[in-house]
This record gives sequence, structure tokens and C-alpha cells, in this order.
Amino acid sequence: MVPHLVTALNGPLLELERRVLEASTSIERWLRLRWQAHEPPFYCSVDLRNSGFKLAPVDTNLFPGGFNNLGPAFTPLAVQAARGAVERICPDAKNLLLIPENHTRNRWYQENVAALAEILRQTGLEVRIGGLNVLKREGARVTLEGFDPCAILVNNDLSAGSPAILAGLEGQTVLPPLHAGWAVRRKSRHFAAYDEVAGEFARLLDIDPWLVNPYHASCGEIDFHARAGEECLASNVALLLEKIRAKYLEYGVKETPYVAVKADAGTYGMGVMMVRDASEVRDLNRKQRNKMSVVKDGLPVQQVILQEGVHTLEKVEQKPAEPVVYMIDRHVIGGFYRVHAARAADENLNAPGMQFVPLAFEASCTVADPHAACDAPPNRFYAYGVVARLALAAAAFELERTAPT
Amino acid sequence: MVPHLVTALNGPLLELERRVLEASTSIERWLRLRWQAHEPPFYCSVDLRNSGFKLAPVDTNLFPGGFNNLGPAFTPLAVQAARGAVERICPDAKNLLLIPENHTRNRWYQENVAALAEILRQTGLEVRIGGLNVLKREGARVTLEGFDPCAILVNNDLSAGSPAILAGLEGQTVLPPLHAGWAVRRKSRHFAAYDEVAGEFARLLDIDPWLVNPYHASCGEIDFHARAGEECLASNVALLLEKIRAKYLEYGVKETPYVAVKADAGTYGMGVMMVRDASEVRDLNRKQRNKMSVVKDGLPVQQVILQEGVHTLEKVEQKPAEPVVYMIDRHVIGGFYRVHAARAADENLNAPGMQFVPLAFEASCTVADPHAACDAPPNRFYAYGVVARLALAAAAFELERTAPT
Repeated sequence: MVPHLVTALNGPLLELERRVLEASTSIERWLRLRWQAHEPPFYCSVDLRNSGFKLAPVDTNLFPGGFNNLGPAFTPLAVQAARGAVERICPDAKNLLLIPENHTRNRWYQENVAALAEILRQTGLEVRIGGLNVLKREGARVTLEGFDPCAILVNNDLSAGSPAILAGLEGQTVLPPLHAGWAVRRKSRHFAAYDEVAGEFARLLDIDPWLVNPYHASCGEIDFHARAGEECLASNVALLLEKIRAKYLEYGVKETPYVAVKADAGTYGMGVMMVRDASEVRDLNRKQRNKMSVVKDGLPVQQVILQEGVHTLEKVEQKPAEPVVYMIDRHVIGGFYRVHAARAADENLNAPGMQFVPLAFEASCTVADPHAACDAPPNRFYAYGVVARLALAAAAFELERTAPT
Repeated sequence: MVPHLVTALNGPLLELERRVLEASTSIERWLRLRWQAHEPPFYCSVDLRNSGFKLAPVDTNLFPGGFNNLGPAFTPLAVQAARGAVERICPDAKNLLLIPENHTRNRWYQENVAALAEILRQTGLEVRIGGLNVLKREGARVTLEGFDPCAILVNNDLSAGSPAILAGLEGQTVLPPLHAGWAVRRKSRHFAAYDEVAGEFARLLDIDPWLVNPYHASCGEIDFHARAGEECLASNVALLLEKIRAKYLEYGVKETPYVAVKADAGTYGMGVMMVRDASEVRDLNRKQRNKMSVVKDGLPVQQVILQEGVHTLEKVEQKPAEPVVYMIDRHVIGGFYRVHAARAADENLNAPGMQFVPLAFEASCTVADPHAACDAPPNRFYAYGVVARLALAAAAFELERTAPT
């Protein structure tokens, strides 16, 4: 079960969404058993896309910003979920240190950090906020102006590298673990883990896993500036487009297939390019090559992931929109729409100019019986919460596998 | 942290409520540590009264009905809380049996059972509903038409006695435990446990425990029909009224003190009498004696608890109202007002003719800073949720102490 939310999409439920609703009891039990074997990361946000024929995660963020974009009605859910995690991770914790991004002059980001700190305070923790540059290492502990935390929540995606000051701490838990940072993390490993989770889920529901899982592929090393690896990229794009075309044929989909080329370690919507034909990656101009070669904090792009593009059917006030679902611990705690007036349904909406529209609580329709189609929107959002939690389960897998031994 | 709720009371926050808000981080941590040492019962509802000078629980129900009276906006919180409890109590549970009261022809009660079952289904459990009379005992397990549950949730307060069919089960968890039933339970033991919890809480906040704790007293055996124990009752009422008067003088309270005489094992608002003078219990007429001598399911009243009466200041549409706070596991999940048009502020509202008014989510005011008095009602309700959880902590204590060895 996830919050009752209203989605932007008002059409009838997809066949897939109906299957998810009907199987909700077994899905919830399946997830419950998963979390026992695979601890989810402390928090996570997932960008979803509903194309009308498939519903899939396209990006999984382990250092979510945007808590300020969740409506106030979600605070109780967030606090309850955070409390559960705190009880388990650090049962007698008193002090928590929150490490934000370095660009803390951004007002929206500051509001995100404030919202997050407030959620944590309401779990019974003293919360202090301090950037990596102001921390002090004392033996195997890290402190902030004498404040000695039991837990350290990182809201900095560590694109700039895994900070030495947080390595090898004793008696202080770093959340999520350092190897969740983009210095180590790769999208390709996440989606490889997602393949397994989506496969199991598809067997549970007896559906084609492609309905919740975009195809993806990787090349080896790539250097956009030196135009090295370009041919491999182009042939993989062509192959992927061919696989998508075959599926479109199978399902009678009329859309034009496209592929998202993304920096394997990129974030903030940077280093992303949409292509409809392999030739497009062969003929990159200097501007495009510059855009693809460096991402946040100057991290050079050496690997890319090719991901089946998923059109978004959702619109908020006639503008293309995609739902972003937020989770704390194992629980969906809310979400919002990312909306971009200047972009199309097959483009990246995570770009300057985007807006955030909070999801509203649906108070007019009870979920007393989720099998009844009493009102489509909250039922639809239930399916979104399920798919977002599949991505969360994949993240748990991914972190287990990349953990330093 | 508890849901943002709107209360019926619009006046300024009491000094006590302000203290609770200011200390919220340490209160939440104190509660977090308590739950680790003392497992709370699966669910609980608490009747509170806010008299303007004190805020106290007056009744703690371990078999709450009325889940149908919670607004649909609370379902996600209830499901999330129930999921946490299910994970801990029976991690791989698949089947849950819900045992309702026997009077299941009451439409409102049926709606309560349906609402409760739906919450549980959304935690990933198959839920079947069956009364005590239709269960089958097979060795050390109980089944319902071949349905073999891992957990049995009792929503029947067991006034009629502790059912043999549920005794000594193996591999099946009964929630709450059988000794939570009214065949064993005593209000006087609950409020004795509450004295300790309230005392600790008062030390934490450096306040007079009386502000959250009504005085109470017990007599020995009593027989209303035979008029045995009446003199003891009268002298204890006089003593209690004297203690209340002294406190009223200390705090400058102008109200008339009163005492609630309640059957020590009574429920459903039965076997309750309000008295303003000791002479009132000496001169009971036949009708009053009949009313006090038998409670639900014909259970005879042999003991009573005398409880300091707490006036309610709250009004919904000019009618006296008292908040009822619902908890699942350790979390406040919602509440409503019990309203009675024909009763006064110092009378029992739990009587035929009462109405239920769901508490509304407060969406207009964030709790980003609970220290800011941005809007009194949600902040006030936070204090209600804290006091309700003190009663929950007392119930945990009480059940530990009465557990069969």
C-alpha cells in the first residue's frame, strides 16, 4: 500500500495497472519477504514513465533532493517511515549529522535540506547540518563543532569522489553507504539488478517483464572528445532500436522508438542524449560532445548506458510530466510530478526550466476495496508505488553487490 | 510525530501543549527507547480529555472498533504502521484470521471490521474473518474452514471470558494476547501502570504529573445489588474529591470537581457513573444499582475504579466532544471526535446517541517547524498524540505484568 495520490493521467487503467491492483496482496507479501533478505537504502527517489503500454523506472536516485516539493500532507508518512529505519539502524541514536551538497546557496536545495532535517528531528534525533568541508575527523569518528553523531545521513551524491573523512568510521553509520555515491555507482549495475527484480516480479504476475523494464545495453570505454568507442556505441544503439521495434510490433505500438544515451555515472539530468537513429551518435558536433563528456563536479564520462526510451503519456496543464516517487526505508512516502513546458514526451524533463507539482492526497475515494475501480487515479498511483519499489529492491541488490569486502 | 490533524478546540495552546511541542525531539527519543524495552500492543485507541488546564487519557481500549470512523486519508498511515508490526511479529506470515465481536449484525461494527481487514490485506496478508463460534481447533492450532492462519487478530474484547479454543496455541500468534481481554484486564491496573509512565514523562518535561494524569482510587469487592462495599466507595469518593479540590485551588480552577465511578472491567461505556458528592453513591436507587452491577456480556461488576473526572473543553458544532486517538503498533494513525448532543462537558459521551466526526488532515500548514505556532490545531493534536502514546506505553507495561508465567 502506498499513499492515495492523484495522478495527472485520467484515462482508463492499463491492463498492467489492473494486474498490479488485483495481485496487491501477493505483491505486498513478496516485497515484505524481499526487505527481510535485502535491506533497502535509507532513502530513494525514482523517476517513472507511463507510456500507456508500459510503466517503468528510468532513474533511481539514492541521494534524493526535492523533499521540499512533497506536500505537507506527506510529512506524517515520511516521519513514520524514517522512525522505522532509525529504530532498526541506530536504535539508541541521539545525534544525526546531515551532509548536504556543496552548492548550498541554491534556495530550493536549502529548502530540501530543511525539510529533510525536520522529518528526521521528528523521529527523536538531534540533527545538525554540515558540509564535508567543515567536518572534523577524530580517530575513527567524525564530528561537527563538537557534535558527535551516531548516524551520518549523506544528501550529497559524492560525484566528486568518496570522501576520505567518512571512510573507515567506527560506531558511526553512514547512510546510504559510501559506495552508493556516484564515484562508485554505475547506472548499468543498477539496471542489471533491476533486470533480476523485474524478472521475478513478472513471474509473480505472469506478465512480460518488458512491460515494467526498459531494455538497456552498455559499451566498453568511451571518450566523446577523442571520438573513441563511437562505432561500438552506434552499433549498440542500432541493435537496441531493433529490439524495441520488435516489441512495438508485438504490442501494436505506433510510437517511434528511441534510445536514451546516458553517462553511466551521471546525475542531475546531465550527460543525457535522446537518439532515434544510430547515425545520430556518429555525427555529434562539438557542442554535443562537450555536453556528453563531462557531468556534475567535472566527473568525466568514460562509460555510457543505452536505455530504451519510454514516452510519457502524463501531462500536467498540457505539459509533459513524469511522476517522481519518494521512498524512505521500504515505504512510499509521497511524490510529485516533474513538468517541463519546453520538452516533448520523448525528451529528458530533468533539465533547467522544469517545475514540480506536488501530488495531491485523494480524499474523496476510500481504498476500502482496491479491486473496485472506485476512482482511477489513486489506484493508478498504487501501481506507480509498486514499480518504484521494484527499483528500490534493485538498489538494495546493487549496493550489496558493490559493497567493499 | 503524529498526523497533522485539526482539533475542535480553537483557543490558544495550553502551557502544557507548548511544553510538549518544545520538547518534541526528546519526547520522541524517549518513546523510541521505551518501545525497544516494552513492545506495545498491536493496536489501541485512547479517549482523551482536554479540560484547558489538563490533558489526560480517560480510557484505553485494546480491541478498538471504529476504524470505519477514521477518514480515508489515514489509510496509508495505518497500512504503513501495520506493515511494521506484521514484519516484526510474523515476518513470513501469509494468513491472518480476524476474530470480530459476536454482535456482527451491527452495521457500523461490520464496517469497522471491513476497514480493519482492508488495512491488513494491504500489508500483504490473506485475511479471513471468523467469529469464535465458527473456529475449529486442530491440535495446537486453530483453523477456519481449512484456512490456517499464522496470526490471529482479536477484535473481540473477550468480556465473555478467555476462549479455550485460543489457549495454548503453537506457531500461531494471538494479537493482542488473551490476557488483554476484559475477563482478565482491570482498569485499575492500567492506570497504576499509567502513574509510572506519566511520572517519568513529567520528570522529562519537568512538569506536575497531575497535568497529564487523573487521580484514581479503588475499593475492594463491591456488590451494588447487596449494597456491600458502599460505605468504602463513599469514603473513597470523598477522599478523591478532596484531593481534586486541593489541586483546583493550587491551579486556580473554578470548575466543580467530579469523580467517574467505573466498573473495573467494564467496556462500551457501560457501568459508568459520574458523582459530585459522596452522598450520591450512598443513595443509589434500584435503577442506578442495576446499571452499575452488570456490564457487557452479563459480566457482573465486582470492582470499581474511581477516576478524577476531566471536563472536556472541546466542542464540535456546539456539542461536547472528546478526541479518540487510534494507534497501530507504536504509531498514531488517526482519530476522530466522539460527540454527544445530549450530554454535558462533565458527562460520559460514550453512550447511545453519540456521533463520530473524523479529524481532518490539516493541509494548509506545514510542520516544517513545530516550534513555530504557525497554526494551533495541528500543533495541539501533536500533544494529543503524545499523551495517547503515554497510555499506549502504560498498556505495554500492564500487559507485561499480567502475562501468565
